[in-house]
Amino acid sequence: MNILIVHAHPEAQSFTTALKSTAQQSFEQQGHQVEISDLYMMKFNPVASQDDFTELNQPEYFNYALEQRNALKQNHLAADIEIEIEKVKRADLVIFTFPLYWTSVPAILKGWIDRVFVSGLFYGGKRFYNHGGMAGKKAMLCFTLGGRDYMFGENSIHGPIEQYLSPIQRGTLAYAGFEVLPPFIAYHVPYISQKDRQDILVDFEKYLKHLDELQPLKFPVLENFDEKMQPLN
Amino acid sequence: MNILIVHAHPEAQSFTTALKSTAQQSFEQQGHQVEISDLYMMKFNPVASQDDFTELNQPEYFNYALEQRNALKQNHLAADIEIEIEKVKRADLVIFTFPLYWTSVPAILKGWIDRVFVSGLFYGGKRFYNHGGMAGKKAMLCFTLGGRDYMFGENSIHGPIEQYLSPIQRGTLAYAGFEVLPPFIAYHVPYISQKDRQDILVDFEKYLKHLDELQPLKFPVLENFDEKMQPLN
Repeated sequence: MNILIVHAHPEAQSFTTALKSTAQQSFEQQGHQVEISDLYMMKFNPVASQDDFTELNQPEYFNYALEQRNALKQNHLAADIEIEIEKVKRADLVIFTFPLYWTSVPAILKGWIDRVFVSGLFYGGKRFYNHGGMAGKKAMLCFTLGGRDYMFGENSIHGPIEQYLSPIQRGTLAYAGFEVLPPFIAYHVPYISQKDRQDILVDFEKYLKHLDELQPLKFPVLENFDEKMQPLN
Repeated sequence: MNILIVHAHPEAQSFTTALKSTAQQSFEQQGHQVEISDLYMMKFNPVASQDDFTELNQPEYFNYALEQRNALKQNHLAADIEIEIEKVKRADLVIFTFPLYWTSVPAILKGWIDRVFVSGLFYGGKRFYNHGGMAGKKAMLCFTLGGRDYMFGENSIHGPIEQYLSPIQRGTLAYAGFEVLPPFIAYHVPYISQKDRQDILVDFEKYLKHLDELQPLKFPVLENFDEKMQPLN
């Protein structure tokens, strides 16, 4: 299996980076091919702009998604975007390792999505959800946060953690066609002991060894909706 | 009233930019003071990193939130962050105008939050939700998207739009203490007529004239939770 790890943490000695390294080692031991996009190391530019295209189709009025669609056909995407697209194309599984910043992904990772998940390839027309461009591939989040696990949940102060993951898990990964595996979440990381952190790494390794036993999360299936995307009862 | 508009669109002639200009004009006509952070115009750097501090407290192991807390006390925040913090401090109301990218904010705006909403000022210890650092201020989203309104909702293909807004409305703005006003949403923008777009601008102007009649969204109140953030029945 080909695996792409997209990693976004500014500190090479961080626990999040240790999760990334654990994933890499574990997959390589299992005989898989692993590629890494370490966004901070790469100094990845996260800002979607005119500079993402070697030529603009409509320079007098910049429409990002339209330019993506044209650039894809005409090979006018910036080189750094092309490289990342090829990595995703090669991957059977994409894993994202990051610290949760403001209940969301860090900007450098959001920008990787904004720029790499181009219109015309990842989605377009009626190609979304189970018909999305990445159908057949899997994706999974692995993230760290400061909050405690009991602060999240139906009656807890912050509510279910899943609500914060909708933009990335549903609106991005599932929308683009990925089967989304349940996330691996490391809570309270800055405040726990070194021993507890080691235990999380051991748990993560076990998790990764049994990925094929995990049930993907449920998202809409286009066949259950009519032409106008209204539900068929 | 002092109003800060944080704007994130790469095209100056875009409809999203027209919404920003409409807000600015409308508020100025009402006699308010308006400041604008036009992130693309400013070439705002959205990547949280070591460069955000003129001196690091712990250079051997970089912890972003910890460095924020120290830098705030010791005046070691980078100049571009200081400037934005001062704008937020002056504001009674912060409005965000942006196109929805992947059911979330564009990376340049996510990074504005990551870097500007510093630990120790916007939140810290038990200062969050109604005790957050920005308590007493209001915030509101105004965004455009390609999807049609009927595609969002309880039984619709994408589910309720609110689920995608949790990270920004709840996990960020409400968490930091802002009262969050209901968002102004412009659907299907790239595909509608010029006339329909004009109508949206007119609706937006009306919306802005009656902001004080809007009920803020509901979020947790710390007084309903015990010391360990478990709900008091």
